[in-house]
Amino acid sequence: MMNTALTRFRPLIPAGGVGSRLWPLSRAHAPKFLLDLTDSGNSLLRDTYDRLAPLSNGSVMVVTGASHANAVTQQLPELRGTDMVLEPSPKDSAAAIGLACAIIHAREPEAIIGSFAADHVISPVEEFQKVVSEAVITAATGKVVTIGITPTEPSTAFGYIRATKSLNIDEAPHALAVDSFVEKPDADTAAAYLASGEYTWNAGMFVAPAALMLEHLEANEPELYAGIMEIATAWDTPSREEVMERVWPTLPKTAIDYAVAEPAAAAGDVAMVPGSFSWDDVGDFDAVARLNQEKSGEPMTILGDKTKVLNHGCSGIIVSQTQRTISVIGMDDIVVVDTDDALLVAPRSKAQQVKDAVAEVKARGLDNLL
Amino acid sequence: MMNTALTRFRPLIPAGGVGSRLWPLSRAHAPKFLLDLTDSGNSLLRDTYDRLAPLSNGSVMVVTGASHANAVTQQLPELRGTDMVLEPSPKDSAAAIGLACAIIHAREPEAIIGSFAADHVISPVEEFQKVVSEAVITAATGKVVTIGITPTEPSTAFGYIRATKSLNIDEAPHALAVDSFVEKPDADTAAAYLASGEYTWNAGMFVAPAALMLEHLEANEPELYAGIMEIATAWDTPSREEVMERVWPTLPKTAIDYAVAEPAAAAGDVAMVPGSFSWDDVGDFDAVARLNQEKSGEPMTILGDKTKVLNHGCSGIIVSQTQRTISVIGMDDIVVVDTDDALLVAPRSKAQQVKDAVAEVKARGLDNLL
Repeated sequence: MMNTALTRFRPLIPAGGVGSRLWPLSRAHAPKFLLDLTDSGNSLLRDTYDRLAPLSNGSVMVVTGASHANAVTQQLPELRGTDMVLEPSPKDSAAAIGLACAIIHAREPEAIIGSFAADHVISPVEEFQKVVSEAVITAATGKVVTIGITPTEPSTAFGYIRATKSLNIDEAPHALAVDSFVEKPDADTAAAYLASGEYTWNAGMFVAPAALMLEHLEANEPELYAGIMEIATAWDTPSREEVMERVWPTLPKTAIDYAVAEPAAAAGDVAMVPGSFSWDDVGDFDAVARLNQEKSGEPMTILGDKTKVLNHGCSGIIVSQTQRTISVIGMDDIVVVDTDDALLVAPRSKAQQVKDAVAEVKARGLDNLL
Repeated sequence: MMNTALTRFRPLIPAGGVGSRLWPLSRAHAPKFLLDLTDSGNSLLRDTYDRLAPLSNGSVMVVTGASHANAVTQQLPELRGTDMVLEPSPKDSAAAIGLACAIIHAREPEAIIGSFAADHVISPVEEFQKVVSEAVITAATGKVVTIGITPTEPSTAFGYIRATKSLNIDEAPHALAVDSFVEKPDADTAAAYLASGEYTWNAGMFVAPAALMLEHLEANEPELYAGIMEIATAWDTPSREEVMERVWPTLPKTAIDYAVAEPAAAAGDVAMVPGSFSWDDVGDFDAVARLNQEKSGEPMTILGDKTKVLNHGCSGIIVSQTQRTISVIGMDDIVVVDTDDALLVAPRSKAQQVKDAVAEVKARGLDNLL
């Protein structure tokens, strides 16, 4: 018999962030979560939705910017209006996730919510779903449950979660109590974390009873809490629009980690279920190239029209978004991104520096390229 | 007093060849000689014409493909119709230079012609002109006179000229008798040539009495000779068009080196005047980058709209022919050529392989890109 906690699960997807290290592919109007970075034919948002839908009891809520409403409904034609929250302006993750949580709670006070970024790549899906199910069952015991990714290298790019003691939950045998969250470490510290076996990567995925989330928000961010509760109360009434327009702009900007996860951990309220699935936040073109190469086994990845690319002994990644023929000769691990109004050429090893290029585009006032 | 030989000098410029290793900048409709590769504001043809005009006694003849007539007259508005020979189809250098020579000879039997490629970069101009003047004076003694470039490295990319004995001509003190022409050598041979001091590079520039050129052509290429003489006789008459259209297609295709220079050398009829000016045939983007870097002192050369390029720590060459913003990050000695319908990305060290890229464009039937 299915654990009843699972019937209370209501996943939500905050779909925000441009992903500026993926410029000029990512743009204000084409943020990372709307891109197909794995040549699957699907956007990252679509893949995220499909991973969660089987666990969702018929409702996956999406929180996104109002300007992305059309693109999101195009990606998710089955998404109902009741499952879409449109932000009039960006307010960081605590407001976005907090409001969705408050709306769900107003509708179903017993709901267990789960928040999952719209722009991560995860496989295999079945393993992910097993881990999320354990997290839901763990959450039902009254915990904020993070999903910790088993580290495969001493990465300095992620925050870490320290967790050692089992919670001894029958149907969630892997759930551990969280001791602490730690910020991105230096290389030596990361190596020590990896060696200890006590740390997992913080992928920003968590599951919790909606009521418990709101309790922590009320304690740590009372102004934010008051605002989202006012909006949530009005949400399924004729005054939604008026209240949203009046209150949303007043909400403080803060991250959900500071507003909930870290204070809850300090209170001993946080659990962790480790995920042994592969997880990538696809932060830059180096990651895009790596993911596609792992999938295809080919040294060169071409996203877009493959017939336009003449490759003479190069490896790396080429994104072809125009009608132009692209001829590349004799370079290893290159990144070439060809769009109608901007071209990027870089080595994979400098993929992080794309943010500097974007900064210069901004500094030059070339806003139409952003 | 000016040596009277100089008043008989009639330079000619065979302007042909696409320069396919400069693709996608060079095209059938935009061959190398019509490009500005040194950021001077002038095409290579214009610079060639300007180097020769002061020596020309008012007439520099240009031989080019009929399809380039408009572009050539745009580059050289002062070029008179009598100084333009348009080829209905490409026939290699012996036909092009031979016909121009025959036309000049029909008009002025005492003329001394000189042939200079349209797409080389030479400086300083004054040194070049001094050398050409010595070559003209030497030619007047009854010689085919090549201009030999003093080698600066053991290049395997050029043919060499061996010449050791002075001809003891008063006003051409540097003129030497040519022993032989040799094909592009291997690296060891090239090093030996350089060490001996007896060899210069064959830059394909030569000066000779028109009558002597025709004598050699008659002896070595009688069919070609008969054809060009028939055309030249009709050239300044109403039947030019009819004769050209009938005879030109029948002319054999051969290079002027085989038709004149080498047989004349074997006959002891060839002299050489060494040139100590710098000379470059700008064969590929590596050469374009090198020339511009020498001129500007800057590690990055940008041809085209410099404001479109955002350079983050790259060196090399970027050609910007579109309205797109080009962002390049952290690569040394790169080549990026951005045109409306084709993009090339390569390292300078692989610039020669652009011909393979062009071969693939051809093989794929993308003729509109050529």
